[in-house]
Amino acid sequence: MRIALDAMGGDKAPGEIIAGAMKALEQIEDDQLVLVGDESAIHKHLDKQKYRKSQLSIVHAPEVVAMDDPPVEAIRRKRKSSIAIMNKMAAAGEVDAVISAGNTGACVAASQLRMRLLPGVQRPGILVVFPTFAGPVAVCDVGANIAPKPSHLYQYALMSGIYMRQVRNLQNPTVGLISIGQEDAKGNELVRSVNQLLRNDERIEFVGNVEPRDFFNHPADILVCDGFVGNVILKLTEGLADSLFKTIGREIARQKPDIADHFLPVVDSLYARHDYSEYGGAPLLGVDGTCIICHGSSNARAITNAILTVRKQLKFNINHKISEQLQPHPARENG
Amino acid sequence: MRIALDAMGGDKAPGEIIAGAMKALEQIEDDQLVLVGDESAIHKHLDKQKYRKSQLSIVHAPEVVAMDDPPVEAIRRKRKSSIAIMNKMAAAGEVDAVISAGNTGACVAASQLRMRLLPGVQRPGILVVFPTFAGPVAVCDVGANIAPKPSHLYQYALMSGIYMRQVRNLQNPTVGLISIGQEDAKGNELVRSVNQLLRNDERIEFVGNVEPRDFFNHPADILVCDGFVGNVILKLTEGLADSLFKTIGREIARQKPDIADHFLPVVDSLYARHDYSEYGGAPLLGVDGTCIICHGSSNARAITNAILTVRKQLKFNINHKISEQLQPHPARENG
Repeated sequence: MRIALDAMGGDKAPGEIIAGAMKALEQIEDDQLVLVGDESAIHKHLDKQKYRKSQLSIVHAPEVVAMDDPPVEAIRRKRKSSIAIMNKMAAAGEVDAVISAGNTGACVAASQLRMRLLPGVQRPGILVVFPTFAGPVAVCDVGANIAPKPSHLYQYALMSGIYMRQVRNLQNPTVGLISIGQEDAKGNELVRSVNQLLRNDERIEFVGNVEPRDFFNHPADILVCDGFVGNVILKLTEGLADSLFKTIGREIARQKPDIADHFLPVVDSLYARHDYSEYGGAPLLGVDGTCIICHGSSNARAITNAILTVRKQLKFNINHKISEQLQPHPARENG
Repeated sequence: MRIALDAMGGDKAPGEIIAGAMKALEQIEDDQLVLVGDESAIHKHLDKQKYRKSQLSIVHAPEVVAMDDPPVEAIRRKRKSSIAIMNKMAAAGEVDAVISAGNTGACVAASQLRMRLLPGVQRPGILVVFPTFAGPVAVCDVGANIAPKPSHLYQYALMSGIYMRQVRNLQNPTVGLISIGQEDAKGNELVRSVNQLLRNDERIEFVGNVEPRDFFNHPADILVCDGFVGNVILKLTEGLADSLFKTIGREIARQKPDIADHFLPVVDSLYARHDYSEYGGAPLLGVDGTCIICHGSSNARAITNAILTVRKQLKFNINHKISEQLQPHPARENG
């Protein structure tokens, strides 16, 4: 397999990205990594490293999409950016997968434009696995599609099910629908329509509507929602967890300075066990190719895990399974 | 003033509700409380209490709206429930305000049906003040209106501004719009339209779009959003804070049992200072009357604060100010 990695994407690029690539190379034997980005910047970081040259190549990209560039415009104008070049290579079959911790919107736009969608898929969706204290919860979509139709969310449930079965080894993943009330009749129009679609498909282990209050108690293996709501959940969770840990730490330092040294290691160990970087990036489900979007603040460990995880996704050929499930079924059409 | 209190509403009714009413009566001299609910249940709790009889009356309500009853149906069928009776009394001018910790949807439906809307107001919205560690943040709407038009959110900004100025003594409250990206062009169609409306009104101190990641750093005094998103934020915050505190507590007990006794008081003091019960319930802004919705798990302290706060809302006659600002302005219409 050939995996393209955006050396310029994310707050810690290129240093941590390249460090993550090096660590991954130690664990993979046959696959190849392609670092895409500013050649001289990449070389500066590579010069200090040892690696098998046959497994690593560099593709120069003179432009960079900034984290706050308007996505579609950036892809249209910065044709020589790492994100644009990677996705073009994927479309041409030169690489099997692309990984970026850069501008999420630009990654989605470039993959959709270049890779196109799998047959039967109406819209791509980003699946993020939340490491809650009660177990991993996958949420789709978290921002690719902020004005979805009911059928889009229905397809996210099917695609996420395939991903969680194949890549995360879950036997019968349960699916919940994020709403503001558990009863089927609660929620906005979108949610009420999606509820019916999920309830009527035997392939989906639907547990019903899930209230955000229960999110962190692992109400289901997979939760579907519109991308605006999913993005709010993702960002609010990060912001609140950060704020709470900091505030508790500050209060302990103020009220009980003598136990502060004992408290911090506990927080660190919690962080380590429930760290997004364990989860190897978020797949953009539904494109005719493989695109993994990493958190903007990804460190080397997150990148290493993303590289190792994407190999599973390719090995189990989840795109083939998605096409099979989402393509209109001739027998059904006729029946 | 006469304030009606739903003795049957909430998880801790009627005990904590009545205890909260008693505590409030100690602090108010001229006003009257009307307890609405099952007469015998109320008397059972009142018999143990001392209070000025002239300040308290009881109105019997033989029915109760359950927390999970479908709101509109409940109000239509349970005409003798505490929520239905209270709102009817308010519409008839028999009480000046209603307070309930019961079924939120039923409160909204009953108030909208009986009190009707203020002239110029298109939809009522629930304003909740979040006690973040960086200062109070008011969010409107958190669930009254889950399919709003842009003009509804625009009106929420105006109404919330009046409320925060009058009741919370904020001089020039800033207003933010919850979105998934700070730039004006980011977000869904609703958000982009509201952004323009807020930017073009000089009366609003608009700080622009606010990302949920910054929510807990007090990005603005007031944040507006659609009721579905606002409810997700409210419930997710409660769920995550609860889950984090519990998990940290459990981890400390496991890893450092010797400091557990020192840690718990810190958490308790944090809870006490950032407790929703300090904030005296959530006003339903825009109805031609005064309706305060309390958290379902309200304790006596929350109820006491709700009673004390609603007096401010009545005293400053914020409804009059809302009508003034929201009624079509003849000069503008003609200009």
